[in-house]
Amino acid sequence: MAIDLNADLGESFGRWTLGDDEAMLDLITSANVACGFHAGDPATIRVTCREAVRRGVRIGAQVGYHDLVGFGRRFIDISLSDLSADILYQIGALDALARSVGGQVSYLKPHGALYNTVVDHEEQAYAVVTAVEAFGRDLPIVGLPGSALLRIAEDHQISTITEYFVDRNYTADGRLVDRRQPDALISDPDEASQRALQAAKEQRADSFCIHGDTVGSVAMAAAVRECLVAAGIEIRPFTSD
Amino acid sequence: MAIDLNADLGESFGRWTLGDDEAMLDLITSANVACGFHAGDPATIRVTCREAVRRGVRIGAQVGYHDLVGFGRRFIDISLSDLSADILYQIGALDALARSVGGQVSYLKPHGALYNTVVDHEEQAYAVVTAVEAFGRDLPIVGLPGSALLRIAEDHQISTITEYFVDRNYTADGRLVDRRQPDALISDPDEASQRALQAAKEQRADSFCIHGDTVGSVAMAAAVRECLVAAGIEIRPFTSD
Amino acid sequence: MAIDLNADLGESFGRWTLGDDEAMLDLITSANVACGFHAGDPATIRVTCREAVRRGVRIGAQVGYHDLVGFGRRFIDISLSDLSADILYQIGALDALARSVGGQVSYLKPHGALYNTVVDHEEQAYAVVTAVEAFGRDLPIVGLPGSALLRIAEDHQISTITEYFVDRNYTADGRLVDRRQPDALISDPDEASQRALQAAKEQRADSFCIHGDTVGSVAMAAAVRECLVAAGIEIRPFTSD
Amino acid sequence: MAIDLNADLGESFGRWTLGDDEAMLDLITSANVACGFHAGDPATIRVTCREAVRRGVRIGAQVGYHDLVGFGRRFIDISLSDLSADILYQIGALDALARSVGGQVSYLKPHGALYNTVVDHEEQAYAVVTAVEAFGRDLPIVGLPGSALLRIAEDHQISTITEYFVDRNYTADGRLVDRRQPDALISDPDEASQRALQAAKEQRADSFCIHGDTVGSVAMAAAVRECLVAAGIEIRPFTSD
Repeated sequence: MAIDLNADLGESFGRWTLGDDEAMLDLITSANVACGFHAGDPATIRVTCREAVRRGVRIGAQVGYHDLVGFGRRFIDISLSDLSADILYQIGALDALARSVGGQVSYLKPHGALYNTVVDHEEQAYAVVTAVEAFGRDLPIVGLPGSALLRIAEDHQISTITEYFVDRNYTADGRLVDRRQPDALISDPDEASQRALQAAKEQRADSFCIHGDTVGSVAMAAAVRECLVAAGIEIRPFTSD
Repeated sequence: MAIDLNADLGESFGRWTLGDDEAMLDLITSANVACGFHAGDPATIRVTCREAVRRGVRIGAQVGYHDLVGFGRRFIDISLSDLSADILYQIGALDALARSVGGQVSYLKPHGALYNTVVDHEEQAYAVVTAVEAFGRDLPIVGLPGSALLRIAEDHQISTITEYFVDRNYTADGRLVDRRQPDALISDPDEASQRALQAAKEQRADSFCIHGDTVGSVAMAAAVRECLVAAGIEIRPFTSD
Repeated sequence: MAIDLNADLGESFGRWTLGDDEAMLDLITSANVACGFHAGDPATIRVTCREAVRRGVRIGAQVGYHDLVGFGRRFIDISLSDLSADILYQIGALDALARSVGGQVSYLKPHGALYNTVVDHEEQAYAVVTAVEAFGRDLPIVGLPGSALLRIAEDHQISTITEYFVDRNYTADGRLVDRRQPDALISDPDEASQRALQAAKEQRADSFCIHGDTVGSVAMAAAVRECLVAAGIEIRPFTSD
Repeated sequence: MAIDLNADLGESFGRWTLGDDEAMLDLITSANVACGFHAGDPATIRVTCREAVRRGVRIGAQVGYHDLVGFGRRFIDISLSDLSADILYQIGALDALARSVGGQVSYLKPHGALYNTVVDHEEQAYAVVTAVEAFGRDLPIVGLPGSALLRIAEDHQISTITEYFVDRNYTADGRLVDRRQPDALISDPDEASQRALQAAKEQRADSFCIHGDTVGSVAMAAAVRECLVAAGIEIRPFTSD
């Protein structure tokens, strides 16, 4: 058994620091790097990519709504053509910065409210997929199992990677509990580790997401990784084919 | 004799329209497309690229300071590493949008205050050059003859394209008259045409710039082009080698 | 009979010009001045206020979502406390600029997607009302008849001003036709004038809105005004009590 | 003897937290609250104002360049009219938020690069002064002794408050050492305390600034305050007359 571990990185912005990218990069196999629209200024992004390349961690485009003050966590009713162009813009920007330090964008994962929106919102999901298609390289898309995003991606012959959040609670119908709810987040490393272990055994997803932006993120990620490794599960990048 | 004609395009932003990109694209050979930092939202940029590709007009990255409200026309005392990352970000973003419609970024030209700054400011000029270098493709840099930018680019074995502004006045030492001065701009098409003709005969530069963002820009560009053609000068993209 | 005429002004942004504020100010009695979140930079706002004060036109705070590239026309799922603070911020900013040229903010009108959202969205409507309440001066709120916004405003003893759009089509249930629909806008001055006349006779609203941001806005406003005046209807600022 | 202690607060932005405003508010007498241009979103600003009011700490407008990613620490070559309008906008926005929680803007202090620029840059200093003048209330201006800012303020009959930075080194001619220099900041609480004590005895300034945005800021502020109090120096708001 093997699992990919991903986390959101590169989310600092200018003077404001968020998360401990270097520590997280020692624990994960796929780095979802912010692209400047919800977080991440170009210099920050470049440093994060450099550190990811140094450790052989794969770089993904963590694309989001253009909403710094809302950190991409607020739904925006954006049109298909605007969203598709916004996503292409973000992928290209990140790819240039990643390439400048020896890496490249290897997959795409929507961030925040966009992630949740494309579970059901056909038009926005389609916008994401067509942006990836238009980028022209085969970029796998990471998303929620059963989401419109992954279904439409498959329809377009784009590789899909299913994801499980070890530190988020789910609703009965398989969606993430809204962050505005008190029980949205799991903060106990043991609980997250057990969830990860269970999900790994049930082969519920191709990649596990661990949040990198809260106090205790690094300890949480370390605990989850250790628990999986102790159970004989290999931590390695997802494969798409 | 032959000359390249370039103009600044893709400078609309959301609801705000600036210039008549389609009309200008019928007259020029190189389109300096805004990259979102001083102007140009992703959807606008993509449309401009599509129209450029349709007409076989080359796309260049018109990179600028991150200053929408100032339209990139105000000097910002930005650090080397921040500016270099900002420029890579802009090139990559534009390139992804250009590629999505069958084009690509073929050269780079700094915009506004950045253009004028890198005439003398060694550090910012160096930042621009190293960003182009880090992008990894051979992108010629368009700039003012005698500028630090072009000198440093040559030092780094990057192709340089000298430029002459047919509708801007120059100071005695070869710099552009500051836009805040009343005589900065030339608005008479005849005067601009004669200047262009003279500059072409004297082979003063590899490319001529015509502004696309003012009332009368299209008429000005048409007059200049017609005058050059009538004098037997070919309008064709610059070559770099 | 008397009617107030309002229009959206101050919507230029830096290099980008939108509408002809001075011409519109000669025709209207209430200027909804953008506050910088969807449009309007501080220098533009100040000039618009100065021109309004010179003509005795009342200044209102045209508050919107913080979304320049979307011009405030895209719904954003913002929280109550964030929206309320955003609106207070905008009112205060505009008031300082208006006061600096001898005016002041005299009313509030939501812009774009916020305007349409607060027709039904109780929480966002409440956020707008509590922001006005917290501002502490008695600012009447302009909105759609029957909207949650005006109902909640009345509950809070805030004056309400009902509005009719002479150049927008309405749905059967009294909402504005979505701008993304082809029949959203009325562009024929005669049709708009007749609608205005009919609405005035039926006393359908306290104020009529004429858009100021499209080609032909000034001609449209002039035609509507002339038609109303010719019918003996006085054009004067709304009264609130 | 008495001294005012001021610190920069309200500098968080959306998801990004900076400093510990509540702890600092227990130690200072004047809070320089960010106004949204270099830091501080409206909801953050409002909360900071509420906490300041609760503790009887005076609120000042910490105005800056419009440059979030640069945190207002990069000089921008902005025009007189644009800068003056930007500052009025910021003061008004903050004042509305402060008033909504029972406070008001009581003074103005430029931030970051603007602070340093107006030491010598006559035009930008003039822009700040005329903005304060246009705001219409008597707002004292806090600045560097000997600066163009304070001189021009006095010429306009605006109260001036001289300031000493206990945790910044000065150049021989009384300017702040550039933050890009390694010795710009003093991080040792004892050293800062001794400097504060010495400056208090020499009555070098009306107010002392302690930075609130670095690790150890609270400990530094507590040490300085304690040292001053132990020496019999009263900590109380500055008076202007």
